[in-house]
Amino acid sequence: MLTEKEKLSRCHQAISPYIHRTPVMTSRLIDEEVGASVFFKCENFQRTGAYKMRGAVNAILNLTEEQKQKGVVTHSSGNFAQALSLAAQSLNVPAYIVMPSNAPGVKKEAAKNYGGFIVQCEPTLKAREINARRIQNEKGATFIHPSNNDQVILGQGTAAMELFEDYPDLQALFVPIGGGGLAAGTCLATKHFGRGCEVVGAEPEEADDAYRSLLSGKIEENVTTHTIADGLRTQLGDLNFPIIRKHIHQIATVSEKEIISAMRLIWERMKLVVEPSSAVALAALLKERDSYKDQQVGLIISGGNVDLGNLPFTTTDGPTAK
Amino acid sequence: MLTEKEKLSRCHQAISPYIHRTPVMTSRLIDEEVGASVFFKCENFQRTGAYKMRGAVNAILNLTEEQKQKGVVTHSSGNFAQALSLAAQSLNVPAYIVMPSNAPGVKKEAAKNYGGFIVQCEPTLKAREINARRIQNEKGATFIHPSNNDQVILGQGTAAMELFEDYPDLQALFVPIGGGGLAAGTCLATKHFGRGCEVVGAEPEEADDAYRSLLSGKIEENVTTHTIADGLRTQLGDLNFPIIRKHIHQIATVSEKEIISAMRLIWERMKLVVEPSSAVALAALLKERDSYKDQQVGLIISGGNVDLGNLPFTTTDGPTAK
Repeated sequence: MLTEKEKLSRCHQAISPYIHRTPVMTSRLIDEEVGASVFFKCENFQRTGAYKMRGAVNAILNLTEEQKQKGVVTHSSGNFAQALSLAAQSLNVPAYIVMPSNAPGVKKEAAKNYGGFIVQCEPTLKAREINARRIQNEKGATFIHPSNNDQVILGQGTAAMELFEDYPDLQALFVPIGGGGLAAGTCLATKHFGRGCEVVGAEPEEADDAYRSLLSGKIEENVTTHTIADGLRTQLGDLNFPIIRKHIHQIATVSEKEIISAMRLIWERMKLVVEPSSAVALAALLKERDSYKDQQVGLIISGGNVDLGNLPFTTTDGPTAK
Repeated sequence: MLTEKEKLSRCHQAISPYIHRTPVMTSRLIDEEVGASVFFKCENFQRTGAYKMRGAVNAILNLTEEQKQKGVVTHSSGNFAQALSLAAQSLNVPAYIVMPSNAPGVKKEAAKNYGGFIVQCEPTLKAREINARRIQNEKGATFIHPSNNDQVILGQGTAAMELFEDYPDLQALFVPIGGGGLAAGTCLATKHFGRGCEVVGAEPEEADDAYRSLLSGKIEENVTTHTIADGLRTQLGDLNFPIIRKHIHQIATVSEKEIISAMRLIWERMKLVVEPSSAVALAALLKERDSYKDQQVGLIISGGNVDLGNLPFTTTDGPTAK
């Protein structure tokens, strides 16, 4: 039996040929704003533009040969659709992606370009699940959940592992929480590869299921998902919540205004295209900065897939919006 | 007497403590679109967000102690204003920046934050020149031209020098041409540090003074400057034109549509915030791609200072606009 730490190390070794080792970037100006040294792990430069590639590759690598031949299926209209498509293509495995018919054409096109078979369905969670199950039955394909899957969780943890290789003495690590895969993986990686580092989760006020779940001790549902951080609208899962609950130091929630402001700060000052979900982590750090004064703080930039034709910036909210 | 090559090497050594060594990035997808291996020298990550910092530092370092005490003056509403301000601040030299009264508040604020004294004037070239001369007389400050200055030209050449240190076998190097400082410096650096590499200049059709100057053999004036590439609206100078004329392989001009399309490609696929002037270089490479098939091609991303509240992207021109 492998220990959890060994599992993480093996996972990182196994997925390395299929992923980018993403750079860590810093900004003097943002350090000044925060009052700490901030190290941004840039998963926006990851293949398919988001960390999701890590977990997708690991999930497929852990299938049996027979399972690989029959393929994988997921339902997603976001980054996991692209990630599973490209991971499957890289490993010569068929991938079926169930997408709601109202998903942006851009996203369908992207998943298709990466080699996935797109299956369109009605835009309801029920229709998605029915279609995914149908493909499991018809094709014998294995369902891979975008975040509530042990192998996906391990894979997502490798971003933090790389960050600790580069900066072993981080005292806190900020990470956005959507479905909980990245947050749970980051918790495990931090436990085994950090040196007493705290993990801080970041959530929009408008999709604060994890924050409320942590308070109540059981999985709470999102009341609203009216947030610009589209990657964080998803619901926490029963595999990742116990890990998050056990290891996370705190979860900070931020307003839509704070998210857009932090996003603008990263775009303007760091010259990085990042998606709103990533800005949620910086917004949370800015909000909690008094607790991390002069510390070394890591932050995972989860991805950079945004619709450039539909950005939230206006001429009046910049450039030094706080 | 130092040779030109020695001057470049000394310049790079001298400015290094004050500038960032910027990373070189690549994109599999853009390589496919171009049909070549493209190496992007990311000066958008340079201090103040543009390569201008290099020349500004070098110009100040080459002043006498007396000149340094009295300070420097320039007129610019763009990247050089910020660069000279920060360079001067880093070297404890006063900097006076003449800016037209209609320059965006954002830009005035930025130059001021970097420590420059902002002097506002009427928005005409004549008013700018009169005000700069007045400050020269009153303060004894030395005028530093943003592009038509030998020390500025050497400084701007160091971006290409670093690129050749990393990728010595580049066969072509694409660079935008505005005032001509970057292009001339790149020509000199390529002559001395490249291995038979061609320099290709890139200009908007709407500000094609360098293209026409190369044809006629003498400096031609811009007929229009109606281009989104605000950094390239300036006029070629009498110090950099002879260098460009002697060494450049060709100048390619591109339409506004091609510029926006290339800019979107860099933002979407590379997740980099770049200004339109930088996209002009990629647009030119895309236009001329047949001549550079399977080659190793360098490209200087000149900067990343854009007004996020006023971007050219629409919902209909992406994501695979070519």
